[in-house]
Amino acid sequence: MSVSRFFLTLVVILVGAKLGGELAERRGQPAVLGELLAGVLLGSSGFGWIPPDSEIFRLLSEVGICLLLLEVGLETDLGELLGVGLSAVLVAMIGVLLPFLLGWAVMIGLGTSSLVAIFTGATLTATSVGITARVLSDLGHLQTREAKIILGAAVADDILGLIILSAVSHLAVSGNISFAEIARTMLFSVGFIVGSLWLGRRTAPWLFGWVNRMQVRGILLVAAFSAAFLLAVLAHELGSAYIIGAFATGLVLSSVNQFEMIRREIKPVADIFTPIFFVTVGAAVDLRVLNPGHPQSRFILLAGGLLILAAVVGKVLSGYVIVDKKIDRLVIGIGMIPRGEVGLIFAQIGRSAHIFSGPLFSAITVMIMVTTFIVPPLLGYVLRRRSAVPATRSHAAED
Amino acid sequence: MSVSRFFLTLVVILVGAKLGGELAERRGQPAVLGELLAGVLLGSSGFGWIPPDSEIFRLLSEVGICLLLLEVGLETDLGELLGVGLSAVLVAMIGVLLPFLLGWAVMIGLGTSSLVAIFTGATLTATSVGITARVLSDLGHLQTREAKIILGAAVADDILGLIILSAVSHLAVSGNISFAEIARTMLFSVGFIVGSLWLGRRTAPWLFGWVNRMQVRGILLVAAFSAAFLLAVLAHELGSAYIIGAFATGLVLSSVNQFEMIRREIKPVADIFTPIFFVTVGAAVDLRVLNPGHPQSRFILLAGGLLILAAVVGKVLSGYVIVDKKIDRLVIGIGMIPRGEVGLIFAQIGRSAHIFSGPLFSAITVMIMVTTFIVPPLLGYVLRRRSAVPATRSHAAED
Repeated sequence: MSVSRFFLTLVVILVGAKLGGELAERRGQPAVLGELLAGVLLGSSGFGWIPPDSEIFRLLSEVGICLLLLEVGLETDLGELLGVGLSAVLVAMIGVLLPFLLGWAVMIGLGTSSLVAIFTGATLTATSVGITARVLSDLGHLQTREAKIILGAAVADDILGLIILSAVSHLAVSGNISFAEIARTMLFSVGFIVGSLWLGRRTAPWLFGWVNRMQVRGILLVAAFSAAFLLAVLAHELGSAYIIGAFATGLVLSSVNQFEMIRREIKPVADIFTPIFFVTVGAAVDLRVLNPGHPQSRFILLAGGLLILAAVVGKVLSGYVIVDKKIDRLVIGIGMIPRGEVGLIFAQIGRSAHIFSGPLFSAITVMIMVTTFIVPPLLGYVLRRRSAVPATRSHAAED
Repeated sequence: MSVSRFFLTLVVILVGAKLGGELAERRGQPAVLGELLAGVLLGSSGFGWIPPDSEIFRLLSEVGICLLLLEVGLETDLGELLGVGLSAVLVAMIGVLLPFLLGWAVMIGLGTSSLVAIFTGATLTATSVGITARVLSDLGHLQTREAKIILGAAVADDILGLIILSAVSHLAVSGNISFAEIARTMLFSVGFIVGSLWLGRRTAPWLFGWVNRMQVRGILLVAAFSAAFLLAVLAHELGSAYIIGAFATGLVLSSVNQFEMIRREIKPVADIFTPIFFVTVGAAVDLRVLNPGHPQSRFILLAGGLLILAAVVGKVLSGYVIVDKKIDRLVIGIGMIPRGEVGLIFAQIGRSAHIFSGPLFSAITVMIMVTTFIVPPLLGYVLRRRSAVPATRSHAAED
């Protein structure tokens, strides 16, 4: 890619994101919805200004989503997160089990093989925390108990998702389930979270005190940034996800003395990188699969519609495992709906293993698109309807 | 490149840059020297952790140098810059003419053909403003009259360099000089500077007033960032350089009401991107050409040594065209020495046109390395020696 092309694409993404975000906010919608729609408009389904398979924008969008989770982690109090731990794990488990069973039932009902049904069910279990975290941040709800439960559940869900992913990947290759592989994934993922938080809380204040004695320009920012990406890589290498490492870094850094300075300096950097993620998610949407002229459009719309129903109902019901009546269970259920990029990873594996046919893959893509795009307006509507929820405007949304 | 590899390389570059910068500052050297040396250590001549031909780091380092020039432009008062305009143009012209003639004479003396001598002379004319701007910023001297003259001369030098580049490129291909091509390059380069500043000063306050009425998070930062990269591309397309466009954006934005906010938010973004530039410049250094066991090391060291002498003497003398005795002419001359990446572009053209032999290319590389690396300590020494220069610590260095 030429330097000019790169600069222009970057400018198009950023300006598109901000104009989309502004228009969305003026209509009372979360800014992230505007960024996603700007991506659709600029991507292959629209003007085609954003190259679909560019390595550099794929890598920069990974930086963007990690910086968002770092920011969300910085805004989140670890004590409060642990306080909702049991509820979060419950929500995550039900939110994985129900969509899996419903998705499996839909596919069996449509007459597919058992392997295809299991794989489709697995695709429905994922939760993309990015969209929900952005909506909660955009609307100033990051400090509510509902937000803590969603974030906690998303982390737990990520671990469950990885366990399922390793199980179905093994299934796709060998035709059977490996319990040793499942146990290993579980141990490493849980081990990373517990280990990094335990160790981080003990060493970070000392480490950042030392860094803070250095004089060179931008040292605190670079230290926080580097810590987030080191932990992201460590999380990934241990079988977890990059964003879990970045989120854990944020949780750890909220305990250091230089917290305020770090938060203030990370923000502009995130402002540049984060839109790249949401715009490229939007740009990857292929609207052609919805074309009624498509030869198998009837199957795609039927299967897609049923899978959307399964995906939405399964996650919304997961919110109702919470017994505490002061918690808005509908908010939690809706917050768990978006599949986003995590669902796409599952779908891609099923496709490259030749388990998903072309039309079924299209139906799953429709499901992922719809579950991702309905959440910003839906969650915005539900949150505003209930002003009973004590909404302390979050720092991230304030600035 | 995998996501993990990308994240780790990014962390290595940033941590290396900051540790190098800190060590340099503790030894009383400008931080940029430490960043360059960290690059040498991490690049192909050292640990080899920074991939030499990575597209993504090449593009990100371009973002870094543009953000540095945007920051320098924000710190620079256009009126003061115009006030030193005549001196700057004089310095630039002599600083192009003398190294060209000296370099040409050296090569004729060494018995090469006239074409090789002209090309080598042209390679010696370039000035890389990046190194000097960073040193002046690191040491808090951006607001001195010397700094204005250097920056103005560097801009003029860039235009002269592009004219020479277009002339010698034509010479390499066709064997003769095209005056129409030279006139076209000159017109477009000068036209861009004058046009963008004139138009920008008139439209930017209105445009940023409009942007400032938008509510979405990070809008001012994104607007300033996007303006810089749009103007960078425009400058490049008109035959000038990206950094000239970014510098012009900074000059324009220092006139808008939201200046303080823009400056504060651009800083952390520059802190992440700028070190990528200096570390990759260091990483590109190939120390093997200095190996005495190299078959043609005697020629390389002889030609390299003479070219260094020509390069340094030619630029240092250019400072002495200034008649005002209150100006430190040595500072200006030294400030014009670094060839950096601009010199490398010339050398690469000569090499791919088969005008430079392998050993001569190595000698030119040595000249570029040395002129780039001696400036930070030399300029630091001269600036500190003369505390008579009224050094208002610049904003960029203060933070």
